[in-house]
Amino acid sequence: MDFCHLVTRQQQKENTNFRVGSSLVGDRPIVIMAGPCAVENREDLIGLALQLRQSGAHILRGGAFKPRTSPYSFCGLGVEGLKILAAAGQASGMPVVTEVMDARDLEMVAAYADILQVGSRNMQNFTLLQEVGKVNKPVLLKRGLSATIEEWLMAAEYILAAGNSRVILCERGIRTFETFTRNTLDISAIPSIKELSHLPIIADPSHASGRWELVNPLAKAAIAAGADGLLIEVHPHPEEALSDGPQSLTPVNFTRLMAELKPLASAIGRTLEQPS
Amino acid sequence: MDFCHLVTRQQQKENTNFRVGSSLVGDRPIVIMAGPCAVENREDLIGLALQLRQSGAHILRGGAFKPRTSPYSFCGLGVEGLKILAAAGQASGMPVVTEVMDARDLEMVAAYADILQVGSRNMQNFTLLQEVGKVNKPVLLKRGLSATIEEWLMAAEYILAAGNSRVILCERGIRTFETFTRNTLDISAIPSIKELSHLPIIADPSHASGRWELVNPLAKAAIAAGADGLLIEVHPHPEEALSDGPQSLTPVNFTRLMAELKPLASAIGRTLEQPS
Amino acid sequence: MDFCHLVTRQQQKENTNFRVGSSLVGDRPIVIMAGPCAVENREDLIGLALQLRQSGAHILRGGAFKPRTSPYSFCGLGVEGLKILAAAGQASGMPVVTEVMDARDLEMVAAYADILQVGSRNMQNFTLLQEVGKVNKPVLLKRGLSATIEEWLMAAEYILAAGNSRVILCERGIRTFETFTRNTLDISAIPSIKELSHLPIIADPSHASGRWELVNPLAKAAIAAGADGLLIEVHPHPEEALSDGPQSLTPVNFTRLMAELKPLASAIGRTLEQPS
Amino acid sequence: MDFCHLVTRQQQKENTNFRVGSSLVGDRPIVIMAGPCAVENREDLIGLALQLRQSGAHILRGGAFKPRTSPYSFCGLGVEGLKILAAAGQASGMPVVTEVMDARDLEMVAAYADILQVGSRNMQNFTLLQEVGKVNKPVLLKRGLSATIEEWLMAAEYILAAGNSRVILCERGIRTFETFTRNTLDISAIPSIKELSHLPIIADPSHASGRWELVNPLAKAAIAAGADGLLIEVHPHPEEALSDGPQSLTPVNFTRLMAELKPLASAIGRTLEQPS
Repeated sequence: MDFCHLVTRQQQKENTNFRVGSSLVGDRPIVIMAGPCAVENREDLIGLALQLRQSGAHILRGGAFKPRTSPYSFCGLGVEGLKILAAAGQASGMPVVTEVMDARDLEMVAAYADILQVGSRNMQNFTLLQEVGKVNKPVLLKRGLSATIEEWLMAAEYILAAGNSRVILCERGIRTFETFTRNTLDISAIPSIKELSHLPIIADPSHASGRWELVNPLAKAAIAAGADGLLIEVHPHPEEALSDGPQSLTPVNFTRLMAELKPLASAIGRTLEQPS
Repeated sequence: MDFCHLVTRQQQKENTNFRVGSSLVGDRPIVIMAGPCAVENREDLIGLALQLRQSGAHILRGGAFKPRTSPYSFCGLGVEGLKILAAAGQASGMPVVTEVMDARDLEMVAAYADILQVGSRNMQNFTLLQEVGKVNKPVLLKRGLSATIEEWLMAAEYILAAGNSRVILCERGIRTFETFTRNTLDISAIPSIKELSHLPIIADPSHASGRWELVNPLAKAAIAAGADGLLIEVHPHPEEALSDGPQSLTPVNFTRLMAELKPLASAIGRTLEQPS
Repeated sequence: MDFCHLVTRQQQKENTNFRVGSSLVGDRPIVIMAGPCAVENREDLIGLALQLRQSGAHILRGGAFKPRTSPYSFCGLGVEGLKILAAAGQASGMPVVTEVMDARDLEMVAAYADILQVGSRNMQNFTLLQEVGKVNKPVLLKRGLSATIEEWLMAAEYILAAGNSRVILCERGIRTFETFTRNTLDISAIPSIKELSHLPIIADPSHASGRWELVNPLAKAAIAAGADGLLIEVHPHPEEALSDGPQSLTPVNFTRLMAELKPLASAIGRTLEQPS
Repeated sequence: MDFCHLVTRQQQKENTNFRVGSSLVGDRPIVIMAGPCAVENREDLIGLALQLRQSGAHILRGGAFKPRTSPYSFCGLGVEGLKILAAAGQASGMPVVTEVMDARDLEMVAAYADILQVGSRNMQNFTLLQEVGKVNKPVLLKRGLSATIEEWLMAAEYILAAGNSRVILCERGIRTFETFTRNTLDISAIPSIKELSHLPIIADPSHASGRWELVNPLAKAAIAAGADGLLIEVHPHPEEALSDGPQSLTPVNFTRLMAELKPLASAIGRTLEQPS
């Protein structure tokens, strides 16, 4: 950790925390971000957002610009997607988080998003890191597929060094030899980050596992290990999703997860509050 | 999973469970196995065993035959170690689990051990698997450092095919690119095994992380993810341990962990009972 | 390979080849790209370029924009570096290859470079891929640290789909558990790419190993496995290099490597020609 | 490398070399070991052995005891297989190499084999290492699927420490995230071992790649990188092989490989001699 300064516990003993909408990130309450992988249409998203909010979600997620391995896959609705996401956020009273893939889109994305997401494939897109470091919005920094904990913290350091200290780290699974799951959730990263840094950290069990049946137990594991929140993919009809259907919860399963997380949170001295 | 039969959920819907001493493995109660990496001396081990029992441990672990990367490292006390371990088990009223590294030692180890451990490096020592399959003792089968979930279940299949159905799987971390932790605890393996197999599964957060500070949060994560128990290294004086000191809890930290696990277990519908 | 079309052997049976300066890339002659990791100063680079050309290098490499893990490391001279590189190319009669990290810099970099390099960390920076796909310059596409062969080809597909078919793939080592080398040169990727695709592929033994002593044997291995060329780091004084010194050859060792590659090339039916 | 002594270059500057039959292992000549994955029947093996010898192979390989992931796969002919292998070796004038999986079989295997193979899955079967260390036969020690170079050398150290200095290391691919190949041939391990140790090292491109089309280029790469020999799977009818058919060369392709290796060997100052 020789090259990190601003992100370290040595630099700041107490946890970083800040408000996003009415939610406090990085403190005792656990923050749940939920929504579809990609924004697909206005009606569905508003309906889903209202359900998610009622089940206890705090922040709405949804992709308008989607990084896709193949150039021929659905890559999101672009600006139109941003507008729909913002509308669904407003309708449900939730702040929204969405990915920015290119520094040239930053101003536009920032006009609609409450949290700017930097995706795994861009964790070491250093010019993008510097640009989001200059914006007055919280940043959700996903860990790269094969990034070490140290490299991940250095990526965060780029953002803090550029002037933005509201960074949320997100563990979303690393690439290993195991093929039963899409990636391997590195659960140890959660307490390791807590030891090394003052920044909040959440987990994304949906991308980590790629299998919706595993999302519930992995979400619980992440909270038990000390995560400050979760990023969960929910889709009204996972089998029809344009991307990542197999890892999406139905609204019913999301509601069940929220109910099961509540006693777990109190068992470890955290809270899971209904959004106000 | 084409080549597995006996270990699969298709073959047997309900969870396998069986008694080891007075503890039920594979059912609602969580089973805690604790003790030092290696048996070092009689007095210390008996003292430690009594403490562990009082803190709520159910089964005593300790190595008499230690697989060591270097031929010049301390490799255990051998038969003498087995005798000490059995004595400490008897003094504290706990069954004991210890590793068998060679089929030629099997009879001797089985004379002292209540559970036979097959270590990571021997997960695909197929002749050893066949031999422990013929013994009338439960087997703790650790996952190989780079074994897939499928290969691990096939290793268990060897034991069941040879006639022994009392197998406990143990997730102990896999080898990845990350170097901050000794290995990467594959937390997803726990619900994955529960989905694919009826066999009980426990986690070893000590070997998985190699850092005692991470043992507490990882133990909680494993229980939250659905593990049936834990294997925890505890040493009266970790800094003087002949092996694996940096990953061993002190008895005080172990007691604290046990106290913190209790509410967590009930939050997810399990129990953590004082040994009877 | 379901999502690839333009890059596949099915699409085009014969190898893609094209001229860069006077060198033919993707045909029988082997193409050597050599130079320092980062452009540091004018005098040194021109001196080095003349030496490299005399030893038989065909293309000059040198970084002006350097992706660095830490925000506090030397990140290149920027435009000034591009100018020095172009001057050294002209002085020595070699075309130049250099990295472009950000779509916003593309026009500027393309004004000086003969080949545009997309680095490992940007292999899935999809907007950058689309932009270099619209430029009329060959692109050197490095494999991502944990990219599968399929993902790498899909990244190339982005460039071809955008209209640029002059893509050179570069295997530069993948991330594995082994720590003796910086990365693990995936030598199998070379014949695998040749089987799956018509695009030329070269190897970068310097980044792959991180150790100059291994560059010579790995360069030979890559040629023997069928690589169309090499990317080699050379520095006049590796111990004083501002980045990647430990993996840089001295000019003397580079000259020795070139002499040793010549008989190897003919042994496998290729040629290593002096640049004209 | 702190825990290694006997295997290091510091301990012995000059390369270890020794005779196996009429072949010198670890010196200028390259040694080719070839044969089927498993011994299947007498007639076929003798026929194949004569062909291999004529094409220039020096040592005959073939498995009688096969480690198999599934308990239900073909696991070799056992003693009968050893007898057939020895007969084929005698008929063709070649020494034979075969795997020993269990210390209890050691005497029996050593009665037939000229080289004792310790397989990947047993690389850290420490009691087996100690036992082959007491036998007066050369040992072929395959690298474990996820063993570091350091751990591999320590496994060799076990054998040397037990008294047997005739150890041949064999790189056979490591486990990584890449799925196009069965394993990833770690070509860097060859020059790394040459730097760190005086022991001979060969490569097994068949197991490393799992695809016969890649065996030819990988064999060349290994020789170019400095390997002292090769272990190649050849089967008279790969499509009918009881194990590892997809990675086996036909005799015709083996003959072609041998012809192509000869000029390569001389290009790097080695020789590939017809067996005497």
